[in-house]
Amino acid sequence: MAPKKGLMQRLDEGVVIGDGGFVFALEKRGYVKAGPWTPEAVIEHPEAVRQLHREFLRAGSDVMQAFTFYASDDKLANRGNESSKKYTCRGVNDAACRLAREVAEEGDGLMAGGLSQTPTYLSGLGKAKTQKEFQNQVDVFVENKVDFLIAEYFEHIEEMEWAVEVCVKSGLPVVASMCIGPDGDMHGVTAGECGVRMAKAGAHVVGINCHFDPFVTLDGMRKMKTALDEAGLKVHMIAQPLAFHTPDAGKQGFIDLPEFPFGLEPRICTRWDMHRYAREAYDIGIRFIGGCCGFEAYHIRAVAEELEKERGNLPKGSEKHEQWAGGLKMHTKPWVRARAGRDYWENIKPSSGRPYCACMSKPDAWGVTAGHSDLKQKTMRTTDDEIKALQQKKK
Amino acid sequence: MAPKKGLMQRLDEGVVIGDGGFVFALEKRGYVKAGPWTPEAVIEHPEAVRQLHREFLRAGSDVMQAFTFYASDDKLANRGNESSKKYTCRGVNDAACRLAREVAEEGDGLMAGGLSQTPTYLSGLGKAKTQKEFQNQVDVFVENKVDFLIAEYFEHIEEMEWAVEVCVKSGLPVVASMCIGPDGDMHGVTAGECGVRMAKAGAHVVGINCHFDPFVTLDGMRKMKTALDEAGLKVHMIAQPLAFHTPDAGKQGFIDLPEFPFGLEPRICTRWDMHRYAREAYDIGIRFIGGCCGFEAYHIRAVAEELEKERGNLPKGSEKHEQWAGGLKMHTKPWVRARAGRDYWENIKPSSGRPYCACMSKPDAWGVTAGHSDLKQKTMRTTDDEIKALQQKKK
Amino acid sequence: MAPKKGLMQRLDEGVVIGDGGFVFALEKRGYVKAGPWTPEAVIEHPEAVRQLHREFLRAGSDVMQAFTFYASDDKLANRGNESSKKYTCRGVNDAACRLAREVAEEGDGLMAGGLSQTPTYLSGLGKAKTQKEFQNQVDVFVENKVDFLIAEYFEHIEEMEWAVEVCVKSGLPVVASMCIGPDGDMHGVTAGECGVRMAKAGAHVVGINCHFDPFVTLDGMRKMKTALDEAGLKVHMIAQPLAFHTPDAGKQGFIDLPEFPFGLEPRICTRWDMHRYAREAYDIGIRFIGGCCGFEAYHIRAVAEELEKERGNLPKGSEKHEQWAGGLKMHTKPWVRARAGRDYWENIKPSSGRPYCACMSKPDAWGVTAGHSDLKQKTMRTTDDEIKALQQKKK
Amino acid sequence: MAPKKGLMQRLDEGVVIGDGGFVFALEKRGYVKAGPWTPEAVIEHPEAVRQLHREFLRAGSDVMQAFTFYASDDKLANRGNESSKKYTCRGVNDAACRLAREVAEEGDGLMAGGLSQTPTYLSGLGKAKTQKEFQNQVDVFVENKVDFLIAEYFEHIEEMEWAVEVCVKSGLPVVASMCIGPDGDMHGVTAGECGVRMAKAGAHVVGINCHFDPFVTLDGMRKMKTALDEAGLKVHMIAQPLAFHTPDAGKQGFIDLPEFPFGLEPRICTRWDMHRYAREAYDIGIRFIGGCCGFEAYHIRAVAEELEKERGNLPKGSEKHEQWAGGLKMHTKPWVRARAGRDYWENIKPSSGRPYCACMSKPDAWGVTAGHSDLKQKTMRTTDDEIKALQQKKK
Repeated sequence: MAPKKGLMQRLDEGVVIGDGGFVFALEKRGYVKAGPWTPEAVIEHPEAVRQLHREFLRAGSDVMQAFTFYASDDKLANRGNESSKKYTCRGVNDAACRLAREVAEEGDGLMAGGLSQTPTYLSGLGKAKTQKEFQNQVDVFVENKVDFLIAEYFEHIEEMEWAVEVCVKSGLPVVASMCIGPDGDMHGVTAGECGVRMAKAGAHVVGINCHFDPFVTLDGMRKMKTALDEAGLKVHMIAQPLAFHTPDAGKQGFIDLPEFPFGLEPRICTRWDMHRYAREAYDIGIRFIGGCCGFEAYHIRAVAEELEKERGNLPKGSEKHEQWAGGLKMHTKPWVRARAGRDYWENIKPSSGRPYCACMSKPDAWGVTAGHSDLKQKTMRTTDDEIKALQQKKK
Repeated sequence: MAPKKGLMQRLDEGVVIGDGGFVFALEKRGYVKAGPWTPEAVIEHPEAVRQLHREFLRAGSDVMQAFTFYASDDKLANRGNESSKKYTCRGVNDAACRLAREVAEEGDGLMAGGLSQTPTYLSGLGKAKTQKEFQNQVDVFVENKVDFLIAEYFEHIEEMEWAVEVCVKSGLPVVASMCIGPDGDMHGVTAGECGVRMAKAGAHVVGINCHFDPFVTLDGMRKMKTALDEAGLKVHMIAQPLAFHTPDAGKQGFIDLPEFPFGLEPRICTRWDMHRYAREAYDIGIRFIGGCCGFEAYHIRAVAEELEKERGNLPKGSEKHEQWAGGLKMHTKPWVRARAGRDYWENIKPSSGRPYCACMSKPDAWGVTAGHSDLKQKTMRTTDDEIKALQQKKK
Repeated sequence: MAPKKGLMQRLDEGVVIGDGGFVFALEKRGYVKAGPWTPEAVIEHPEAVRQLHREFLRAGSDVMQAFTFYASDDKLANRGNESSKKYTCRGVNDAACRLAREVAEEGDGLMAGGLSQTPTYLSGLGKAKTQKEFQNQVDVFVENKVDFLIAEYFEHIEEMEWAVEVCVKSGLPVVASMCIGPDGDMHGVTAGECGVRMAKAGAHVVGINCHFDPFVTLDGMRKMKTALDEAGLKVHMIAQPLAFHTPDAGKQGFIDLPEFPFGLEPRICTRWDMHRYAREAYDIGIRFIGGCCGFEAYHIRAVAEELEKERGNLPKGSEKHEQWAGGLKMHTKPWVRARAGRDYWENIKPSSGRPYCACMSKPDAWGVTAGHSDLKQKTMRTTDDEIKALQQKKK
Repeated sequence: MAPKKGLMQRLDEGVVIGDGGFVFALEKRGYVKAGPWTPEAVIEHPEAVRQLHREFLRAGSDVMQAFTFYASDDKLANRGNESSKKYTCRGVNDAACRLAREVAEEGDGLMAGGLSQTPTYLSGLGKAKTQKEFQNQVDVFVENKVDFLIAEYFEHIEEMEWAVEVCVKSGLPVVASMCIGPDGDMHGVTAGECGVRMAKAGAHVVGINCHFDPFVTLDGMRKMKTALDEAGLKVHMIAQPLAFHTPDAGKQGFIDLPEFPFGLEPRICTRWDMHRYAREAYDIGIRFIGGCCGFEAYHIRAVAEELEKERGNLPKGSEKHEQWAGGLKMHTKPWVRARAGRDYWENIKPSSGRPYCACMSKPDAWGVTAGHSDLKQKTMRTTDDEIKALQQKKK
């Protein structure tokens, strides 16, 4: 049997499909707490994490990304999160890697370790302390022989550069992906410039994940591509957007929307949105195409089905999904059978069933970012009085 | 250790929380095909079915309902469904029972076998043939020592009576639940009369599942309760609605909505909708409160959290979910921490992010039902010409 | 020249088209104050009132209804309204009649005097005092030789009966029209029963005006017709609904909607809505078809155009309006010319351009009505403290 | 009595309020035909035009703009418009001037003559022929001693420059206003550059009218102001937007929206929208603030009320309109009295009552403009076959 192809070769030769979102999916399934969003489920409920990996693999994901989001020591201990009392960064990252590896080997999947922005940076504690947090994770990834590293969910290009600096030392391929939109990072750096700086810092693949819906994200990617082209930089690109519609999110994305995180349901994308996303992403030239929060297996499958020709195959999960609603031909009701067809679903404008709700929301836009005192983190739980003060501020 | 309490005792003493939906959840996860909707996943991917059971158990479900929906021989072979070539009704039902039993024993859960309406009835093949289909399933349930039987998802009270007749012979408690709304069954029998006829047929618990959202369903339940009271019938009641908003569905429910089944995302209920649902259901006097299609673990958990006082405990899954968004106190962003509170979420009117979509849809309303030639089922796959003819009819 | 045909003959032989709304139109034009809504403009700005009459005549109205809405002495003096200092009930009603007569004679129009519900009744001052208010208006109408009387905008059938009693003594044809919806009057009398009681009180034409949109109004009319038929009462029917969509208004109609009266714009009906209204009203058997608040000349013209065949002619105003958008054939832009056709406009679902607004509102529903102390009227202006107390109550 | 102050002095000293829209208002009233939109009503129904002028004067308009829109000979004869058989450009313009002058003298109003884009230009017939059309109108304006000229509703800066060239020769103040949005003119000239070129051509006041809502229009004006500042050009600015919300209109404005012109009702702005518009326009530095299609008297009154302090007075029409809904204190219903206050109306998000309609539409965007053969005009009426061909093209 030939050795597994690596990330860069796969990107050069074709398309790599990423996985979907873990924190939102596992929050709904009961294994992750919204608020801290830390991934101790890899130790507490490995069967749940393993199952989710399997769903993505079956749906067509080529990458099993270890569930190490926010698994830095400073985050495990932030604002009353008790995970740090039971688990260490090392323990969590190690368990995550082993689960991802196990499922990756059930198919032809690559396995990646991921790191993301830190409370240390947000609190303004400086480069050395911030990079120490990253190094702790990367050490575990290297020990676990991950196929590549992914630095994602960074709001500030500065912190991202620090992360990439740590990652490249490992000698592994490095993917760098910021949670920004077309308006750029939180310090006012444009999306294009962010792309250029990630590439110059040494990332082999650059792009955007989370915070915005597929189409807003692709608007940002178009700007990034233009800047990369103008700078003459040849790197691959990645997009891993939300599966929530966010035409109304401001600069900071869905976190600013009043529906975040417990009222986002009406914004969930359909599989047909993902067909369109996959096609547009491919046409822009993006070759690492996946998803982030809200992206479930069926969204990934839609990406894989849209790119069937480019990839030369369908995912296993398509056994249970005839393309373009073909399965409806087997429905008992004749008017549902009449919906079996591409034209019907490509043009549907789905209703919300919520006539007392508006279509768009005004985002919060506090305008505070790294460096602002409101963003200093701490280990103690926020008190009720502090919450009241914040609510007052909101008004 | 005391023997497990049975369904009727539990209902007499308090509240029983049902589970959520299997076909929609497993379709999204890649294990069930939309169209035929048959449950052969219990054999093909037991780990996926087991995991879903566990999520509901963890979320507070007191009932593990074996995944036997549409597992009658006539449905496994309907309209080109190839399941019948590989699996039998007996095999599928047996595997489903064993999975549900396994997870039920991980907690204090009851295990139930379920049957639903049949192509045989829809095609007008008569009582004897229809009851034979039911008997085949009930035989397996009895062999597997299920705690009770549930006849659910019936659109016609006539077929339901035939099903209940078969079920009661088993000597087990029988739950009977129709997929109707306030407008009653497909043959024009009122919701109230349906309730009365189910009770008179011998069901111990009667109610409504699927086809409508929680609030439309409860409107139907109010009518059923009134009729039961007027008839002096003392039975328990069950509600297991959709987790999709359907104020605009006609008599036949969400199947008639143009978004069914692949564009329902904007209609998905939030956990806060489910708090309201649980409270209203309880106040009506319903003691078996669960969910159907679209209901995920976090919806069930919301039901359990709302009824914390009535039940005297919280589900295990609440370890990862502080009530009323309390976990947001640990969020890094101050404006998100400000959302930690009941008042905020109880009053949110979530936006869809879809300004080009309307809020309500006109349902298809073909007005064909059991007895109509359009509803005759067959084993062969529907041809493309037949689909075209149906699409023409739609216009 | 043959003498003008009277109302009853016209109704027996065909369709009579009413006029549209005066208070809302003249408020927007600057001549009526929202709040008191009294019609002293007939004295202050006769040219403005005359012009509005002319627009309706030109649009096809067969009736010039004198602008005497709320022109009873008690209303002219209510809650700080200073009209009573300058004008009398007699003076206002007389001026209104003369204007209506003048324009009626420019065509083949009938002229009617109208009276409506009184603060005297709302304040619980009894039958004698209430009827005195009506008698004062009727005296002026008789002196002005109106062609018929119209008692409209009554929320309570009791007060309406008192009004009809006064009207019938005049010997003139009496039209009686309540501002109710399908749920009936404010004291819980059904719409059907209201119709029957108006007919039994002696009204020659009975129906509904104001408070609800055309389609909710027609739902009420269907109930009224059924009750009249069941009671064997042969009277003509009238409908004069709002030109604002009100699917979400509760029992008390658009007054309860939060948009009343200064935010109703997005609810304004199109001319195409009025085609449908006219057709449905005619098909129910209604022969006096007009409009109330929000109904402008072009809405009335649409009614007249829809009923072209039944009436045997088009209104003068159709000189400037080719049916079903035919005039667009003369537009300079080809894509606008492409919109010249019935199919296009009959099926349009017009967007609001307001993505931050919902489609439906929760109405206020204070549940106070005649007899409740909150509805006692007074002559002094409401104080700021009283307003604050009310606003507090609202929360 | 001191002589009336001229336009430029008024603009230097304070704010000038324009009038609202004539073609849409008179179309609804029955005097203008949608499609050709020509103003022969000034001859056929002077009382209707006079009344509309009076409403604007009463609402606070400082300018009575003669109703000469599209009154060029080529437009009166375009595509089957029969106006040219009865009326001449000279006759229509002359009658319009006399009506406007009459009403202007009832107050302290200025009177202006207006010209707009021509079929001659659209058809590519060149500068000489196009300027001849303008000259014909300007000659009449000069004879009628108008106070100033207004060249408005131009989609192409080239034609606008030709118009301004003709206007400036008159020696009168010239206002130049294009119907463009932030994306600039139909030939790709930016909004900023359009402003600069109008000023350089000699216009004393430059800006934008029609085609977009107040807020989109002001976005365009901000760009124009920036460009004028950068070019060091000191001219006054004018804004006269639609009173229809158009966040979704493309480059060509509301004409491209599928609702144009007979389904725009749900987009109509409230008076509270106009308060915000007036404030924002003033803050940008615009001193000529009026309205175009859809702007009715009450919208203009709202502008005048918002600018009460800046102008030192309220319009006459405010006799019937206490600021910020104060008149509601006189309403009979307590919950409506509770709505008497600024906070309530400033924050209202009005519902459409149309749950089956979306909030935003996809505009037609044929991309044809002056020079394209589809825009060649002709005098004969468009045939049904031509309409069918266009409809086919639309699909």
